[in-house]
Amino acid sequence: MIRVGICGYGNLGRGVELALTQCEDMKLTHIFTRRSPEKLKIKAENCDVISYEKITDFKNEIDVLINCGGSSNDLPQTTPVLSENFNVVDSFDNHKEILTHFKNVDFSARKGGRLSLISAGWDPGLFSLSRLYMNAVLPVGRDYTFWGRGVSQGHSNALRKIDGVADAVEYTNPVFSALGMVQHGEMPDLTDKEKHTRECFVALKDGADKEKIEKEIKSHKYFKDYDTTVNFVSKEEILANHTAMPHGGWVIRNGNTADGSNHTMEFRLSLESNPQFTGSVLVACARGVHRLFKENKRGCITLFDVPPAMLMPTDSEEIIHKFL
Amino acid sequence: MIRVGICGYGNLGRGVELALTQCEDMKLTHIFTRRSPEKLKIKAENCDVISYEKITDFKNEIDVLINCGGSSNDLPQTTPVLSENFNVVDSFDNHKEILTHFKNVDFSARKGGRLSLISAGWDPGLFSLSRLYMNAVLPVGRDYTFWGRGVSQGHSNALRKIDGVADAVEYTNPVFSALGMVQHGEMPDLTDKEKHTRECFVALKDGADKEKIEKEIKSHKYFKDYDTTVNFVSKEEILANHTAMPHGGWVIRNGNTADGSNHTMEFRLSLESNPQFTGSVLVACARGVHRLFKENKRGCITLFDVPPAMLMPTDSEEIIHKFL
Repeated sequence: MIRVGICGYGNLGRGVELALTQCEDMKLTHIFTRRSPEKLKIKAENCDVISYEKITDFKNEIDVLINCGGSSNDLPQTTPVLSENFNVVDSFDNHKEILTHFKNVDFSARKGGRLSLISAGWDPGLFSLSRLYMNAVLPVGRDYTFWGRGVSQGHSNALRKIDGVADAVEYTNPVFSALGMVQHGEMPDLTDKEKHTRECFVALKDGADKEKIEKEIKSHKYFKDYDTTVNFVSKEEILANHTAMPHGGWVIRNGNTADGSNHTMEFRLSLESNPQFTGSVLVACARGVHRLFKENKRGCITLFDVPPAMLMPTDSEEIIHKFL
Repeated sequence: MIRVGICGYGNLGRGVELALTQCEDMKLTHIFTRRSPEKLKIKAENCDVISYEKITDFKNEIDVLINCGGSSNDLPQTTPVLSENFNVVDSFDNHKEILTHFKNVDFSARKGGRLSLISAGWDPGLFSLSRLYMNAVLPVGRDYTFWGRGVSQGHSNALRKIDGVADAVEYTNPVFSALGMVQHGEMPDLTDKEKHTRECFVALKDGADKEKIEKEIKSHKYFKDYDTTVNFVSKEEILANHTAMPHGGWVIRNGNTADGSNHTMEFRLSLESNPQFTGSVLVACARGVHRLFKENKRGCITLFDVPPAMLMPTDSEEIIHKFL
């Protein structure tokens, strides 16, 4: 049994906790939290809840630690530190900073003789893998990514920071006419605005000025380059209808082989719960990290470095039989 | 530069030849044929055409040999033999025999200290990879594969063997209503007949009995379990409209995370030329084999064993930057 620890018990941590219940070869042994451990209500049985401050004491009791913090402030600090003492998997998703994060984690993982995998999930993660395979097979072509319909946490947070807003949720939607062109291999030029629309559900504080806030949203740097719809609703409606976290999207490559033939490759996800699905990806990656560590791989890696078979619990003959 | 040889110059061999022109890190150095080498008209420049009988003489001049024979009679014999002296990539696609083929190739590759990759292409190949990744991430769920619209060589050959048939082409079509249910996560039970239809274009020999032949087709073991349409056309029409070899399909997994959320993962290919696209996959695999061989990997592998990054010519920092 692979002994797994979870660091951080928010939506993603809970997704990892549940994903582990579907894996017979792994068990959740510890959850680390910055909150008071005795106050944390967890679902797992036979799992200790420990204060984050004491985490290093457990370095020999955990095979892989899944770091479930946020990408803006938490993971850039904690994954490099934890990587010296643990094999760590994280979901760092700030695309522009990934290379820096990679180097920081690689340095400390090598120092401690450990193996970490960063930026797992679906984008970055499975979408990145799709882009890589598609480009390896069709070197001449164009890539497109469409997201949605899904809740963007970053955009929702931006709405909540606006003066007069009590609560808000933003959905990113694909423009289906553009998506259709790409799916049919037309290789169009598309601006951001032509690919996505932004749909906001906003609950106001008492006395807030609707018109002013709608203007402020539509001129905000996150929204001004898109067709943005603002729907004013009650706080109760947001709680009732907009707390699920669906997401998904499409990675598509239109390419040509040298005879001139056109080919379209497409990978699509439609997810009822983003954190539950992302948690499932992190768990599969934890298995891969454990197996590569046993084969003496050290440092920092990404999904690009994991032989796909290592993500499965079964042996190679069964994998050939079932999937090839 | 990776020196690549092609063994067998049919549709697939020509696909590999053209795919190599899109890769700056690889060059085609030799084509081996069972036909008279001097009669072969090839497109590549600076490439020697050699009789298959002499292939072993070139074992030190080629980094990877792409074996482009057929799966029924050629590859099961030749890949094991060639694997002792070459790093070989093949597209063996007889799903039921893959494990036997794997063991035969593994034995001779280890004997000769070489590395071979079998069953590359799209199914088996990219579709297999999709099934593996999807199952690793969502262990609880159901897989579906739909093919089409595409030409099935096996079914076309079966038609051509029927007495009175001069030429014929079979298209496999997905049943879009069933596909739609799966794409929307409904996890239906589907029989073969409910997933695909078979569409035949048949040119008759002079004096052949239409009605009898249509009956024979519809009761043939390849067709009797499907809704099969038979269109009688002229030989000229087959040559004019049915010599392209489009294909494609969908791999879809409907799965649930342990919170009950439903998720759908989908990989789709739409290919104007099956052999050209398959050739491109084999070439990417040849790169992966060359790199894994340099890292001292020996024996037989499949795409499941190749870290995705090894399929790309670029280094790991650039891959992270471009694709993650």
